[in-house]
Parts: sequence; C-alpha cells; structure tokens
Amino acid sequence: MKDLQGIVLAIAERMAKEPDRGHVAQYIPELAKIDPNQFGIAVALADGNLFAAGDADTPFSIQSISKVFTLSLALGRVGDALWERVGREPSGDPFNSIVQLEADHGIPRNPFINAGAIVVTDVLLAGHQPRETIGEILRFMRHISEDDGIRIDPEVARSEERTGFRNAALANFIRAANNLRHAPEQTLGVYYHHCAIAMTCKQLAMAGRYFAFGGRLGVDGPKIVSSARARRINALMLTCGHYDGSGDFAFQVGLPGKSGVGGGILAIVPDVASVAVWSPGLNAVGNSTLATQALKMLSNRAGWSIFGET
Amino acid sequence: MKDLQGIVLAIAERMAKEPDRGHVAQYIPELAKIDPNQFGIAVALADGNLFAAGDADTPFSIQSISKVFTLSLALGRVGDALWERVGREPSGDPFNSIVQLEADHGIPRNPFINAGAIVVTDVLLAGHQPRETIGEILRFMRHISEDDGIRIDPEVARSEERTGFRNAALANFIRAANNLRHAPEQTLGVYYHHCAIAMTCKQLAMAGRYFAFGGRLGVDGPKIVSSARARRINALMLTCGHYDGSGDFAFQVGLPGKSGVGGGILAIVPDVASVAVWSPGLNAVGNSTLATQALKMLSNRAGWSIFGET
Amino acid sequence: MKDLQGIVLAIAERMAKEPDRGHVAQYIPELAKIDPNQFGIAVALADGNLFAAGDADTPFSIQSISKVFTLSLALGRVGDALWERVGREPSGDPFNSIVQLEADHGIPRNPFINAGAIVVTDVLLAGHQPRETIGEILRFMRHISEDDGIRIDPEVARSEERTGFRNAALANFIRAANNLRHAPEQTLGVYYHHCAIAMTCKQLAMAGRYFAFGGRLGVDGPKIVSSARARRINALMLTCGHYDGSGDFAFQVGLPGKSGVGGGILAIVPDVASVAVWSPGLNAVGNSTLATQALKMLSNRAGWSIFGET
Amino acid sequence: MKDLQGIVLAIAERMAKEPDRGHVAQYIPELAKIDPNQFGIAVALADGNLFAAGDADTPFSIQSISKVFTLSLALGRVGDALWERVGREPSGDPFNSIVQLEADHGIPRNPFINAGAIVVTDVLLAGHQPRETIGEILRFMRHISEDDGIRIDPEVARSEERTGFRNAALANFIRAANNLRHAPEQTLGVYYHHCAIAMTCKQLAMAGRYFAFGGRLGVDGPKIVSSARARRINALMLTCGHYDGSGDFAFQVGLPGKSGVGGGILAIVPDVASVAVWSPGLNAVGNSTLATQALKMLSNRAGWSIFGET
Repeated sequence: MKDLQGIVLAIAERMAKEPDRGHVAQYIPELAKIDPNQFGIAVALADGNLFAAGDADTPFSIQSISKVFTLSLALGRVGDALWERVGREPSGDPFNSIVQLEADHGIPRNPFINAGAIVVTDVLLAGHQPRETIGEILRFMRHISEDDGIRIDPEVARSEERTGFRNAALANFIRAANNLRHAPEQTLGVYYHHCAIAMTCKQLAMAGRYFAFGGRLGVDGPKIVSSARARRINALMLTCGHYDGSGDFAFQVGLPGKSGVGGGILAIVPDVASVAVWSPGLNAVGNSTLATQALKMLSNRAGWSIFGET
Repeated sequence: MKDLQGIVLAIAERMAKEPDRGHVAQYIPELAKIDPNQFGIAVALADGNLFAAGDADTPFSIQSISKVFTLSLALGRVGDALWERVGREPSGDPFNSIVQLEADHGIPRNPFINAGAIVVTDVLLAGHQPRETIGEILRFMRHISEDDGIRIDPEVARSEERTGFRNAALANFIRAANNLRHAPEQTLGVYYHHCAIAMTCKQLAMAGRYFAFGGRLGVDGPKIVSSARARRINALMLTCGHYDGSGDFAFQVGLPGKSGVGGGILAIVPDVASVAVWSPGLNAVGNSTLATQALKMLSNRAGWSIFGET
Repeated sequence: MKDLQGIVLAIAERMAKEPDRGHVAQYIPELAKIDPNQFGIAVALADGNLFAAGDADTPFSIQSISKVFTLSLALGRVGDALWERVGREPSGDPFNSIVQLEADHGIPRNPFINAGAIVVTDVLLAGHQPRETIGEILRFMRHISEDDGIRIDPEVARSEERTGFRNAALANFIRAANNLRHAPEQTLGVYYHHCAIAMTCKQLAMAGRYFAFGGRLGVDGPKIVSSARARRINALMLTCGHYDGSGDFAFQVGLPGKSGVGGGILAIVPDVASVAVWSPGLNAVGNSTLATQALKMLSNRAGWSIFGET
Repeated sequence: MKDLQGIVLAIAERMAKEPDRGHVAQYIPELAKIDPNQFGIAVALADGNLFAAGDADTPFSIQSISKVFTLSLALGRVGDALWERVGREPSGDPFNSIVQLEADHGIPRNPFINAGAIVVTDVLLAGHQPRETIGEILRFMRHISEDDGIRIDPEVARSEERTGFRNAALANFIRAANNLRHAPEQTLGVYYHHCAIAMTCKQLAMAGRYFAFGGRLGVDGPKIVSSARARRINALMLTCGHYDGSGDFAFQVGLPGKSGVGGGILAIVPDVASVAVWSPGLNAVGNSTLATQALKMLSNRAGWSIFGET
C-alpha cells in the first residue's frame, strides 16, 4: 500500500494554495455564507484505518450525497420494484431533465437527479409520518458512520424549503403523472431534511465504506446491503453521480462518486477505500472544484482509477 | 486465474440454448439477412493467451464498435483539441440527441453517438482524400489485431449509404452549425466504410487489448496510446458506450464496453482482459441480447466487475 | 341581415341529434358529472338583439374562457408592460409549453396557455388580497354581462385546487424563474376561482360584446377597452385561443374564439356579433366537439368568416 | 373607398425616411448583396385597380412567399389528403420545429415552415421530373400574375442549394421518417427553385388576388381555387405565415400574410384587396422591418384589420 497519509497531506497542502476555488452555491442562503477557504479529505480503508487531512472534522451540508444513502434504504424497502418508478440512465443536461420527465410520463431518468431522488424519498415515506422517515434516515446515517453525533441542520432545511420552487415544480409534475404517492409538500419536507444532514469528511468516509467493501462496513463489518447491490449503486454513481458533469468526472477521476452542492464528494475505490472530500466552491456544473481536483490527484497518485492502473 | 476456458465454453453452451435471442437489425438490408442463431466469444489476456468459444472465427460487421478505434486515431491526430468539437457526457435518449445537437450548437454530446462519431470521422478526414482515410483506419485495425486479413464489406457500406437518411440529417445539421469541415457526403462516406469493417470475435478481442493493458498490445507489446488515454476512453465506454442503455449495461455488467448494431460488443476488463462477444439479435435499445447476457455471466463468474468483486 | 333566429334554431336542432358528442373532461371531478346531452347557443348583435337556442340559460363553468377577461383587466392595469412577462405567440403543443417555459426563462408564450394565464392572474393580484382580486374579477363579469346573478362555483374551484398538480408545477417553475410575484398557492387560488365562474350562453355572449364592437358593450354602450385593444385581443384569440387546436379552429371556423374545458366557446365576429356556444363533450385537443361544429355551421351560413365571404 | 393612392404614397414617403431598416439576410450570398434602401408597395383591388408606390417595379426574390402558391397547387393535386402529411398548427419557435418534427414522426407542423414546404414540394414532384415541376410552378405564377415575364433567378437557387445544410437536414429527417417520396436532393432542388422566383410588388399583388376574392383573379376573373380553400389558406397565413413572429404580426397588423426572407410580404384583405410590400431589411424574427411597418400603417389608415374597424 502506498503512503496514503503522505498523499492526503500533500493533496491538502496543494489545495490550500489553489487560487481558483470555484463559487459557493448562492441559491440556498444558509450555504452562501460558508467560507470558501476550507478543504478537507478523509480516506477509510477496509482494515479500519482512516487517513485524513485539512478540515476533515468540520461538518458540512452533504446535500445530494444523501441520495446514495436514501437509495440504499429504498432498495432495502422495496427491492427492484423501485426501478419501475425511477430509471437507471444518465440524464443529459439539467434542461433535458424536465423535458425527459414529461416525455417519460413522470419516471425520472435516475435516482440521483432531483426528480429521481424525490421519488426515492416518496418510497421511504410509505406508511410513515414525515418525522418518522426523517428519523429513520438519520439513524441509518449514524449507524453506518458509527457516530451518534450526526445531525440535521434545521436552518438549511427550512432555507431550502422556502426557496425550492424548482423542486416543488418537479414534485408537482411527478404527482400529476401519478408517480408520487404523497402530497408534494410532505415528500419535499423529508427530502429537504435528508439533504440538510451535516457531516464531516471523516464521518462521510466511514458512512461510504459499505459501497467499497462488498456491502459491509469494513471487511468483517456488519452487512448493510448485498455485495451485488453495492456494486450496482457504484455503477449508478459512476454514470449519474455528478449531474451534467458525470461523464467528465469519470473521464478525469475514474472513480464512482456522488457530489453535493454543499461542496462534498463521496468517492468509492471498489475493494479498497471510501473517500470523502470537501471544499465549498463549485465549478460550472455544480460540483466542488477542489474536491474534484483532489480526487483526480488521489486517483492518479494511488493508481486507483477503475479504468486501469497508470 | 479462474478456469477461463471453462467459463467461456459454459457461456457459449448456455447461449446456444437461449430461446430469446432478440431481433436482428432490419434497417440495414445487408445485416437483416444474418442468421440469429450465432454466438461467439473471445477473451484476450495480457500474457497473450486467447480463450474462445462458439462462432469466434466468423466475421461480423463491427458497426459502432469502430468508433472506439477512430476516436483513438483522432485523439492521436489532434489531441485534446478534439474535445472542443465533441463533448464527453452521456446523451440521454436518442430523441434527445437531436434536440441536444440543436441546443449545443452542433457540438455532439459524446464521440459514441452517431453525431459525435461523424465529427470524429471528419477530424480524421482533414487533409486527406476519403479513400486515404479509409485506408488508414483499415491499416490501424490490421495492426492492432495483428491480422492482415481484416477487410471492409463494401455491400454493407453501400447499403448504409443508400438508406442512411437520419445520419445524413445529423451530418447536415452539424455542417449548418459549422462543426463539420467537409461535405456531409464525404464524411459520411468514410463513416459508413469504417462501420462496415468485418471482424471475428478473436480479431476484435485482439484489437481491444490496448484499452485493457495501459495502451499496449499486451504487457510488453507496442504502445498504441498512452495509458492515461486508454483509461479515459474506457471511462467514455462505460458512460456512453451503449446509447440509451449505457447506464443499464454499467449496472448489469459493470465493465466498459462498446456495442454495435451488428450484434458485437467489445468489453474491457482493465489490467486483465479484452473481450469480444457477438450474437446478431438485438434488445430494445439496440444492443446484442445474448452478448450482453454473456458479458454479465462472465463478469459475475470471473469477478471482473470494476465496481467491486463478489 | 340573415334570419339569425332561424339559423341558431336549426343549429341547435341539428346538434341535438349528433351522435358523436365527444367526452366530458374527467380530470376535474365536479365537471365529470355534467350531462353531455346539453347544447346551448346565444348570439348578441350590436343593436342589442340577442338570439338564442337550446340550453342557453343553463350555467356552465367557463374555465379558460375567463382568460380573455382577466387579460383585459390586466392590460387595463399595467398596459403593454404586461408583454414583458407574457409572449404573444402560439405555443405549439402542450408538451412544448413546458419545454418552452424552461427555454424562455419563465416567460409563457401567450396569455391563454395555463402558464400565461397564471402570470396574468399574478399581475391582477399585485397590491391586493386574493379575495379582493376574485371580487374584482367577478364584479367585472357582472358589469359586462349586465347580470348581477353571475357567481363562482366554489366546489369547482376547490376541486381544481385539490387536483391541480400540473398547474402547481407550472406556477412553481415560473416562480423559480422570477416571473411570479406572489406565492404559487396564492396566485393559483385566484386563478382557480376565476376559472370556476359559472355563466349561461346568454350571459357569456353579452360579456363578449366589447371584443366585437370596438371595445364597447354594443355600438353606443359604455367603453370597456380601446378599440385597438379589442382588435388585438381578438387577434390573440385567433392565433392562441384553442391550445393545440388553434390553427385548426381558425382553418375550420374562421373566427377569433376562446374555448374552455367546461365545453364553452366564446367566438367573436368583428363589428357584427358576440357568440357563446356550449356543449360539455370535448374533442381530442380539449375543445367542445359540438360547439366547434356549431360555430363552423354558423360561420358558413351567416358568411361570417373573417377570411372571406362564401 | 378611401384615397388608396394617397395612402400608399404617404406610406412609401414615410418608409423612405425610416432610419431603422433592419438587416438584409446574410445566409444566402446572392441576397446579401441587395441594397437595403429600397421599398415598394402595390395594392390590387377586386375591380382591377392597382395602386402602387416606391420600387414597385423592381423584382425581388419571393422566397417563402412561394409557399402559399405551391400549397395551392398541391391542394389542387391531392386535396385534403395533403393534411395527412402536413399539419395546420402554428409551430412555436424555430428550435421547436426540429424537436416537433422528431416527436411527430416527420409530420411538419404546418405547410409554411421549411419542413412543411419541403413536403408540399415533394407532393408536387410526384410522377414528374424536377424540371417539369419547376416549369409547372412557374407557369402558374405567370398565369395568376397575368405576366409572362416572371422568371426564376438561377444564381439564387444555386446559392441556396450550396449552403442549405439545414434544409438538407430537415429533408433527410423527413425522408428517414418516411414522409418524403423522392430523394432529398431532388425535392430540395425544386424547393430552391420556387423560392428563387423573382417578382415585383405589382406582380405579387396581382398573384395574390385569388386569396382575397373568393378564389378568383378579381370579382369576375377566372377561378383558381374554391372560395372555401382561399379562406382556409388565409387562415393558415394568419396563424403560421411569419414563423415565430406570426402571433405578433396578427396582433400588430391584423391581416393574413406570408413573408419571405427576401424582404417581401404578401398580405390579404379578405373581399377587399391583395397587397404586396417589399423592403430587404429584416427584423429579429426574419420578416421585413419596413414591410411589416407599412402594412400596420395601411391596415390602420384603411381600417382593414380583420379583427374589427377602428
């Protein structure tokens, strides 16, 4: 094994000096206040080792990264029946996603675009009160991170709820097409709360382990999902994990990953590591500028691309 | 290493009995005549071993699989400047591809949809006569397959040329948007000829080795492209290699691959193997039914998914 | 002048026997209960004469016909500044209307598609409570119909509010694009109420007079809008008054008109007559089957097409 | 009758001084050379009188105005069966027209967008050589204009043929969707030739008379089409005659009309007059700036809007 601690330290050092840090998301008032001069990285290995550098202990809003976890829960709940309500194909551009929703009768193209994640949340709501579902998701996050301190930032959730007209439009479209079982406000309420979960890089790297290690929290850890399911969610992350920048992320980094507008990215090195990187500034397609760059460096230096070693 | 010969024989045996073989492409008259009861598979390893079963010595029309080879040539010619004329993102559905072409001012979304491959061919044409470019592509295919017997089926090329109104529409759109440098008929002429290259599974598995082995034809073989370029083309195959079924292929098979409407699929197991499978019947999204199924079995039995071992 | 009473009686008689009456709109539960065997027609002339036949005294839900009246009020309120927030071009198909809304940054293509009418309602709301705006619209309808008995059907309004997910989607999209000034629920509340106005054919023919008579309620009647504005709203009715069937209505009937999903159509014969026809069954594009047919007969027999006499 | 000669002279005088004359179409090299300081107008009345002013004797390229004449011929040839291959609805924006073509399986939305006019030309070709069809169209134009001097400008036709990649794309799409019976090049050859017909305002006003006078060339003139057909083509001109500016033209001018990219507009005052106006500079949506303005003045001063007198 390479000197991972050395690599992550070198990456954090290099990122600290980067002049072009992207732009912090402005559309959620609570997120717009975040200091862009932050960068954290954490790498969890199968043997339980955790390497970290930079602001790896600072909590940030995981936002869309939560979608890989709610997807895991929903698949656990309804199994492959989920795929009757959500597709598994990349979505093309954001503009297209609405056109597509209309053309495909309310079946979102994949579970990681907002429309798809809203349907996944709707699946989790079935038979429960919103509050219960939010509690269930939070307990799951604490379990897989092995950290009971993880919480939801209510200010962020409220902030998104007040300004989320576009998501409200999507949810209403899906409802009009009979692919939402609950009132749009209810489903969106749960959705905004799981997006508002705050985690540190260390916690997130821990949480992502089951994708890397055949469905387990470490080689001998408890089973969270089957190994086949872990592989398949990894495949979805690779093809659909970064919105309109998914192809480019695969091309540049070569790892399955899921980004969030809070600046975090969870990346998976199958059979090897779960990696969480965070820096608040975003690039043109809404993914963290420095986190993407850091993952490209890490993948190169460690020879971790799933598309071939250097 | 697993008993690969045993695995490929078992797969070929199983496939021979499959009742649902899909439907042979009808829109190219020459291809519509092919007997659907054929199936071939060949696996080329880094050490030079080649395992094969079924109709692995029968030549078939590689069609869109040729796009990964013309892309390699075009990148060798103009380098990353190519990406100013073609994107690297999955395309969404076929319907979308035209809308997208219009919205993005003639920049096709990736080099593997027809519009993108036409632009790649246009790059190869620069400064040459169509006949010269066709010759160059054919020589390249013979070189990487180590087989001078590979040829172009002129009947198939002519057949596509006569009926390819949709491709003519795409080429003319791209030309109207100033992203084609030659007359649409000229570029399409070359395009139809490289799609009409006929190869056997064995030849194709040999040809694909440089994607699997860091840009080389086997571990100590000659360098065809840089290892970084090989990885990146693999990433593109994974996200964009199967049109509207790319996400599903990644989800089910877990390997980079490129399919052709002739029923062939080239799949890459990074650092391990180059695999060619062929069976003429296609599924609803235009990929070989049995070749997809065979690759799923192979990936499972050999533990080759890039998204994690079983 | 032709024997108009004879013509309308003949039309009503013919329509009573028509076997193909279309299908009553199902998506609004309150409207789905209406008996399709009804047909009414009323023609108001400049000299004050009113000819009617069939169920011309039965109130029906005017639905989208209300949009020509709210447009008149909004233009009175903000003048041509309205056209910065709504376009004046036909919309193509319903599918397109959402795509277009996205492409045009929340500017609906015309004031008669739902998205456009929602923006018009938003203009009327400015500076008022929803209840006041609803009251203002109702008073206007009573004034131009010269009938204080006109009322809003609260059951219909509530019914639409409960099931109007698609309109909620549109309103939220427009709000996300900054072209709505009030909360989507508020604007939609007013919108659903003016759509739920119930009127008879006689009342509606009276209400439409100012479009026919240079902005006045009859030749010497009070001025409601300028003659130029009346002409221009007539032009909009002709190009955009029947959703995806606007071109066909112009082609078949040759008169400006506005249809509603309740089965009513208001048609204008410039300088000659205001015509209201009603029958609940709708054709494939959502316009009353018999009302369209009746207007075609009327236009032919009276020689009223604006595109030339017979 | 108003002093029409006085009105047209006043309009020509006013237009001569207009500083903002729009921009001459650049995409057809032959048209780009035209002097923008030209303006002509001609008004043909039912009684045979012809009033003209400005450059009313200068021939210009009628371009898309030819579509109303080829439509008349095609309807004469196949009758209402034409409407199985072309729609009658406005098209929305130009972007949409391609999307729509795809969505509607190659049925263009109306006969006046390029896609629709290409299908109309294809109908005229049936059973003939391109040269014969071009001859037939030219003879028709000479007949209805009562002027044997009308000719086709071969330079313009060739110029469009060489640069018409977008039309070639449309024709190939339509062919791919089985709604074109001839080779795209053949149909386009005829299309470019009828668009390249050169006429003066006087000739064009004469040619348009049958739309105004119930299908006849003047009240007692020969019958060209039935009065019902004339009315219906007028309706199509009103809803679809000016591409993406059709709604606005109806709103501003209030007359059926058809514009061409050469700067001409044919406008019809049903039962009253056929009007041809020409000035080469175009506005943002591709219609002649001064011709539109002149028609607005004419419609206002003569009280000719079909949507009501002033």
